[in-house]
Amino acid sequence: MPMPQVPFDDRGLAYGDGIFETVLLRDGQPVLWDYHRARLEQGCQRLNIPLPSAQQLVQTWQSPPTSALEVLKLILTRGSGGRGYALPEHVEPRLISRRMPFAANAERWQGGVCVRLCHLRLGHQPLLAGIKHLNRLENVLARQEWQDSRIAEGLLADSSGKMVEATSMNLFWSSNGVLWTPSVDHCGVAGTLRAALLAQGVIREGTLSIDDLPHSERLWVGNSVQGVWPVSELLDAHDNVLATWPMHNAPDPLQGEAHRLLGYREFPASESK
Amino acid sequence: MPMPQVPFDDRGLAYGDGIFETVLLRDGQPVLWDYHRARLEQGCQRLNIPLPSAQQLVQTWQSPPTSALEVLKLILTRGSGGRGYALPEHVEPRLISRRMPFAANAERWQGGVCVRLCHLRLGHQPLLAGIKHLNRLENVLARQEWQDSRIAEGLLADSSGKMVEATSMNLFWSSNGVLWTPSVDHCGVAGTLRAALLAQGVIREGTLSIDDLPHSERLWVGNSVQGVWPVSELLDAHDNVLATWPMHNAPDPLQGEAHRLLGYREFPASESK
Repeated sequence: MPMPQVPFDDRGLAYGDGIFETVLLRDGQPVLWDYHRARLEQGCQRLNIPLPSAQQLVQTWQSPPTSALEVLKLILTRGSGGRGYALPEHVEPRLISRRMPFAANAERWQGGVCVRLCHLRLGHQPLLAGIKHLNRLENVLARQEWQDSRIAEGLLADSSGKMVEATSMNLFWSSNGVLWTPSVDHCGVAGTLRAALLAQGVIREGTLSIDDLPHSERLWVGNSVQGVWPVSELLDAHDNVLATWPMHNAPDPLQGEAHRLLGYREFPASESK
Repeated sequence: MPMPQVPFDDRGLAYGDGIFETVLLRDGQPVLWDYHRARLEQGCQRLNIPLPSAQQLVQTWQSPPTSALEVLKLILTRGSGGRGYALPEHVEPRLISRRMPFAANAERWQGGVCVRLCHLRLGHQPLLAGIKHLNRLENVLARQEWQDSRIAEGLLADSSGKMVEATSMNLFWSSNGVLWTPSVDHCGVAGTLRAALLAQGVIREGTLSIDDLPHSERLWVGNSVQGVWPVSELLDAHDNVLATWPMHNAPDPLQGEAHRLLGYREFPASESK
């Protein structure tokens, strides 16, 4: 299937005027679809882009699967036209998609990951916070801060020194036996796995400052495609070790609930790379 | 000439990972090119995108002009590839361009314009401030705040209540006979006309709060394509009149210098719509 294209005057290209979703497909069926659809709807409302029909969305995963696990990426732009930033009189959104085979990294589920506290601080823009819009230069810049493949993710704080998320995952921590995630009211993306865990009462929204980050009981990063990675080591922006956490074989309450939602069994060899 | 396209995996589309320029062509030659090129270079440095060669850039305006005035839009993306936000091993930037005939709005030069103070406040992100990157959702949202065609531009303050720019123009004001423009160190775009006026010593960088905006001696908005529009009327976000300024036939020091730089004669009937 040829790769979809967009023309020069597409507003997604010109201004990042659109949203996207990255959806795990298991045996050709989307996982956590209700949450993806809800975030897509919220993004459309916030940006004032007409929502595609259910049929248009379903068609993006209607062909037979090529792999037990796949990732479906949807991009919805406001379409072409308009005079500069002004909208065209008739907005015709453009929905394009692509499917790729996927394999989860089960080693990271079990062995944990090393993460880095990024130098970049996320700016506040409440009108764009939470939705998965196409203006992602902050994430791109943050991801350029390291090349060492041993570092699995970068953690991002905001301009006021509060932790927000990782570059492409949400952040979770435990404190006094309760599981928490930062609010994403001022910046950051409200991940669908995070949304499902909040809805199930597994996690709560809380505040974690940069200074308190190394003193967390436990830390995790996760999203709806990769699942949940426990953090074993935290580096600062100069690669100094700020904290380490032992990985043990005791049940992991966050990963257990998350992987149940995603259909990942615990450490399944068949789904590892 | 067919409109250029970019594929689904282009990072300009996926993340707004790129920059653009909108250049006035007069008789097929770019106006203020040194300033456009300098900003392009600064954008490439900031985002770590290889700069196109001078030859690649010159080729975008090498065909014969179709109109005395044209607008050349360049989009430079980081190209395709990479794993998520991580860069591909070999970055191959994509430079695409389009030329359109243009006519300046001389009525606005002479009669002034009505502008509106937008509700949206620009977020601070010093790493992206000043450059003309493709993450422009704030501008798109601000431009959606009004439909009334009598309103020519929307003025934008930042989250700390300081004036920054207009949605697609820079802002200028006079105080005690001195001409000023806001700094763009925390947000906003450093326009090329603004840069040329700063370099010539015509304007200086200063601070203007929202509260002081209506009390300005005079206000202007302008860019390197449209030239400079004096502001005759300022509305708040509820369309209440905050201030008016009389338009008179006395020489306009800012517009005079700006239009000399752009090659616009004063109120030339032949270049009006």
